[in-house]
Amino acid sequence: MTHPTRITSTLNLPQALREAISRSGASRYAIVTDSTVARLVLPMLSEVTAKAAGIFTFEAGEESKNIDTTTRIWRSLVDASITRSDLVVNIGGGVATDMGGFAAATFKRGVACINVPTSLLGAVDAAAGGKTGIDFMGLKNEVGCFHHPLEVIIDTSTFATLPAEQILSGYAEMLKTGLIAGKREYEEMLQFEKATGDSATFNRLVEWCVRQKMRIVDADPTEKGLRKVLNFGHTVGHAIETHALTKGQPMPHGYAVGLGMAAELYISSCQQGLSMDVANEYLKRVVIPYYAAALTANENDISALIELMGHDKKNSRIGKPSFTLLQAIGEPHFDCHIPQELIASSLHYLLSAI
Amino acid sequence: MTHPTRITSTLNLPQALREAISRSGASRYAIVTDSTVARLVLPMLSEVTAKAAGIFTFEAGEESKNIDTTTRIWRSLVDASITRSDLVVNIGGGVATDMGGFAAATFKRGVACINVPTSLLGAVDAAAGGKTGIDFMGLKNEVGCFHHPLEVIIDTSTFATLPAEQILSGYAEMLKTGLIAGKREYEEMLQFEKATGDSATFNRLVEWCVRQKMRIVDADPTEKGLRKVLNFGHTVGHAIETHALTKGQPMPHGYAVGLGMAAELYISSCQQGLSMDVANEYLKRVVIPYYAAALTANENDISALIELMGHDKKNSRIGKPSFTLLQAIGEPHFDCHIPQELIASSLHYLLSAI
Repeated sequence: MTHPTRITSTLNLPQALREAISRSGASRYAIVTDSTVARLVLPMLSEVTAKAAGIFTFEAGEESKNIDTTTRIWRSLVDASITRSDLVVNIGGGVATDMGGFAAATFKRGVACINVPTSLLGAVDAAAGGKTGIDFMGLKNEVGCFHHPLEVIIDTSTFATLPAEQILSGYAEMLKTGLIAGKREYEEMLQFEKATGDSATFNRLVEWCVRQKMRIVDADPTEKGLRKVLNFGHTVGHAIETHALTKGQPMPHGYAVGLGMAAELYISSCQQGLSMDVANEYLKRVVIPYYAAALTANENDISALIELMGHDKKNSRIGKPSFTLLQAIGEPHFDCHIPQELIASSLHYLLSAI
Repeated sequence: MTHPTRITSTLNLPQALREAISRSGASRYAIVTDSTVARLVLPMLSEVTAKAAGIFTFEAGEESKNIDTTTRIWRSLVDASITRSDLVVNIGGGVATDMGGFAAATFKRGVACINVPTSLLGAVDAAAGGKTGIDFMGLKNEVGCFHHPLEVIIDTSTFATLPAEQILSGYAEMLKTGLIAGKREYEEMLQFEKATGDSATFNRLVEWCVRQKMRIVDADPTEKGLRKVLNFGHTVGHAIETHALTKGQPMPHGYAVGLGMAAELYISSCQQGLSMDVANEYLKRVVIPYYAAALTANENDISALIELMGHDKKNSRIGKPSFTLLQAIGEPHFDCHIPQELIASSLHYLLSAI
């Protein structure tokens, strides 16, 4: 299944959003957003908010991503007299686009939506691709469906409202996209100063990441093969994340992936001929400054980490972990199996460097 | 979008359902049904129920078709450890297949389902076609999505558990399908004795109706044109239904359509060259014995009924009612506009005959 999502980045969000709404052909629209975004971002969209048929604001945070909030969104859509030919505009992080997208997908059997991600992780991970959902009984995205947004509009200046931790989580996802899909872009990301870099470059890099993800997802809609390249860094990353959790020191998913990629770059060098310089530079320029401090595992945990990889339901079969590895930057191979000793060496490589 | 729904009728539901579950390839399945069906139909499916990972039973009736019941279905699917490669089997009338289908469509972003309609109306109207949904804030199917069932299995012997009113509602939908799609089948339906007729013939006619509906829906997935032929009888029918409601004497939707078709057959004779014998025979063999007693409107209500047709949001544009008319049985034309005097004559034809 292909999707019609138009992906754009902009330095002028108010104008870009007005144009997108106009392009949709909808005569009415409702806005779904969270309390933080309502305070920090909506004021600059006054022309768009003034013309909205309704604005629904939920308490910011993952705890809001549930069926009660969804029911309240549906209610607000009824109150705003939204019809199937109208529009829902989701403005916020992954919670807003996942839950607002789910509410739109299921209102009158499907209302079109536009996503405006206001977090880096939301932009690169959640806003495009059509996965919508809410948490249920403590399970993430247990309830949801597929519903491609009409448009995703990226303005990285809205990310400034976020804590540094969220930016760094999204940065790891960006670097992953660069490593699996584009040498030139990866090198630009390594050099890019997220705090002081210019918005036009940041916009361009984020938009590139979203397009790469869409390209990969479209090429493998049923999640049978190619899409697995998106799991680069995740086999080791999930083990690190779960291990931290069991130690009572949870770390953001993006950090775990950022750490996992160092080990998987090392394995790629040993098995696929990737230059060891790539792993070494990544360790020095990314892991040490950003993610090393979050690491809780040490050399004594190596066998525990390997054990966890065998149990990873996404990246293993019958206890044997499976890896996406790089032959070169931008040349990933999925479903790679490697000797256990090499996994151990890669963890040693990561842990001893920190 | 085409759909993969396999439609079958059977004289041996237990075996047909076992085979369908096996064909699905799912290793686990959960059953969704209502309290009446659980009592009257499930006992004959003991082999299937014994192997189910879970059975969810809701209180029979349209009042159960809401988000609270849906939430309880999702909970039971979690409890039954249903995964995306498993299956939900919906057994019941339109409420069970609409709501069970919606719960399946949105659980883990979509679990396959099999529908076993146990009401005639459910079989011909709700079980196939992919529309799922629940009522919300007093609005029918306000929340829902599209999700085609893998299979629809029809066993008309299960309809015997229903009140006669529901059979007659479904019978009107069958006759409609015959009139728009098949002269031979229509004539068979006219002759078929629902109470005493043999199950094999009944199965065959119902299965034929579901296939015709699927064919029409598939040919016009976006509801732009051809699908409007399914509204035969509905322009006059909706007006009769709404009029009865405003008089405080609500009538089943199927009855209203059954009455509306008499008027629209008359119009078809005057405008499209359909033989007047068809209208007269329909009046004598269908309206008089089955639906006439439910009619509350009389000759004084003709202008009120015409007024209502102009306001019908589905079958009118800018106050001008639009009709599906027949040139012959099986040869419908949609988007027909006719002089107001002819609408009045058709209502006079219907009302004076009763």
